[in-house]
Amino acid sequence: MYDLLIIGGGPAGISAAIYAARKKLKTLLVTKSFGGQMMEAYQIDNYLGLPGLLGVELNQKFLEHLKRFEKKSSGGAYDLEIKEGETVKKIGLNDGGQFEIKTDKNVYQAKSIIIATGKTERKLNIPGAKEFEGKGISYCPTCDAPLFRDKIVAVIGAGDAGQDTAWQLTNYARKVYLLNKYPTMRGDNMDLCEKLEQNPKVTILSEVVPKEIIGEKFVNGLIYEDKRTKEQKKIEVNGIFVQIGSTPDSFFVNNFLKCNEIGEIIIDHNTCAASFPGIFAAGDVTDSLEKQIIIAAGEGAKAALSAYKFLRDK
Amino acid sequence: MYDLLIIGGGPAGISAAIYAARKKLKTLLVTKSFGGQMMEAYQIDNYLGLPGLLGVELNQKFLEHLKRFEKKSSGGAYDLEIKEGETVKKIGLNDGGQFEIKTDKNVYQAKSIIIATGKTERKLNIPGAKEFEGKGISYCPTCDAPLFRDKIVAVIGAGDAGQDTAWQLTNYARKVYLLNKYPTMRGDNMDLCEKLEQNPKVTILSEVVPKEIIGEKFVNGLIYEDKRTKEQKKIEVNGIFVQIGSTPDSFFVNNFLKCNEIGEIIIDHNTCAASFPGIFAAGDVTDSLEKQIIIAAGEGAKAALSAYKFLRDK
Repeated sequence: MYDLLIIGGGPAGISAAIYAARKKLKTLLVTKSFGGQMMEAYQIDNYLGLPGLLGVELNQKFLEHLKRFEKKSSGGAYDLEIKEGETVKKIGLNDGGQFEIKTDKNVYQAKSIIIATGKTERKLNIPGAKEFEGKGISYCPTCDAPLFRDKIVAVIGAGDAGQDTAWQLTNYARKVYLLNKYPTMRGDNMDLCEKLEQNPKVTILSEVVPKEIIGEKFVNGLIYEDKRTKEQKKIEVNGIFVQIGSTPDSFFVNNFLKCNEIGEIIIDHNTCAASFPGIFAAGDVTDSLEKQIIIAAGEGAKAALSAYKFLRDK
Repeated sequence: MYDLLIIGGGPAGISAAIYAARKKLKTLLVTKSFGGQMMEAYQIDNYLGLPGLLGVELNQKFLEHLKRFEKKSSGGAYDLEIKEGETVKKIGLNDGGQFEIKTDKNVYQAKSIIIATGKTERKLNIPGAKEFEGKGISYCPTCDAPLFRDKIVAVIGAGDAGQDTAWQLTNYARKVYLLNKYPTMRGDNMDLCEKLEQNPKVTILSEVVPKEIIGEKFVNGLIYEDKRTKEQKKIEVNGIFVQIGSTPDSFFVNNFLKCNEIGEIIIDHNTCAASFPGIFAAGDVTDSLEKQIIIAAGEGAKAALSAYKFLRDK
């Protein structure tokens, strides 16, 4: 029986685990993998105190910090266990009224839960999208951008993630199309919008929707529609990066917690309490308006301190 | 006329400034000084990604990050100005309906405001407290702990800050009294509570209140009352560190914003919006339950993104 079970290994889950360990809670962190969406980010400049790192590098800093508080690395000074490579399938209550958490490998009991599972990338759903995944279609620019040196690539989606992807690709590709469904560019970093607009390698296609991906062994073209004229056009591309948003990984809470219309867990933003007593949520899986690493890390801390008080006052 | 004026140079204000600069807002950060309460912290182990730093070192990291986005250091790529050494005295509206911010040196106009002024230490109010300030009584352990090598010291207040202070002092002093007004130890770090209880240098006095500080040129004793017996006792000490909490620096918002009974600015915890449109608040000056550096930094980011949307949608 754990005091606290934390689900998720992104900034929210890791920050929660550090705070919980320091509170001397018997804590288990269960995660499919570490880093979350951050792992696909190229350069992160807005996490206070650690600017200019790759997502993978920032995750490495977070993991090093986490390990200081792990039971085995701390020589038992803290009571935090970590299980990587497990996916939570269901949460419920056992006969004793404690939480029961089923993963694909184990069943755990805990007195409180923090959900910090984040979001996953939304898949493109047009002809050719599934067929050419891994054959020119990528969802991970950090992983795959270097493969497109001197090639022509398209980025589908021109939000923060799409912009960042296009920017990364200018370091490799000889031409980058950025497909924007809106008339103008939007995003966190207006400086980046301007830089993309001024970069001779980048062609921004505004008010367009992708229609079909074509190729033989690998992608060699993309058909899109101009929303204003309804005209379809074909561009020659060697690679396509898809950045069309993400969905919260909250499927396993269905019967337990109130979620909003897009599946985000509704929380009290001062305490991170979800709608069932003893369950807290933090980071991108919640209905927090802003999805940012520093905000997720702060919410993880809040959730752990709230869980501590819940257990103390029980 | 600035798009945004940020008041305060702690983690909330700095994080807000970085986010605002990246959004290309014409921003001014005004602060009396940088770092806030953090500057008095010895070792900070719970700021995700940067464990084990002194408060002053962590503040240095934050400042280096901030400077990347300052107008002059960035060669004009970002439009962030910084004014250190000014104290905001009043905020109001000018005839054009814009905010007018009066400091002890200047008057500024801005379309939106983020208040991130934090808290300041509460002063001890017993006989001798004022008289011996700087003569054995200190509010800043990071500054003054090394002065008490091989001496006997007392820490008044046994919350997080008092515990941290006592712990720091064990590195220097030969004996540390920790005066706790409660029967048991409370705080963020239960491990630290245990370590203090087990440390032979530390004597925890529970359920006591300080009554008088005595000395000649310098402090040489402290009289306290045992709350259970009402008996007064005297201990011989060479130094006294006061850690009895803090009050929010919100005096200048009096007529403008709703505050709670202890003067904290009431905010919407999802947007950091205060009660007057266009004014946002973040960090320890707000009614956020948990006062932590990582939470303040996240709130600063939230406040800046909310200010950006307020200006965009105006």
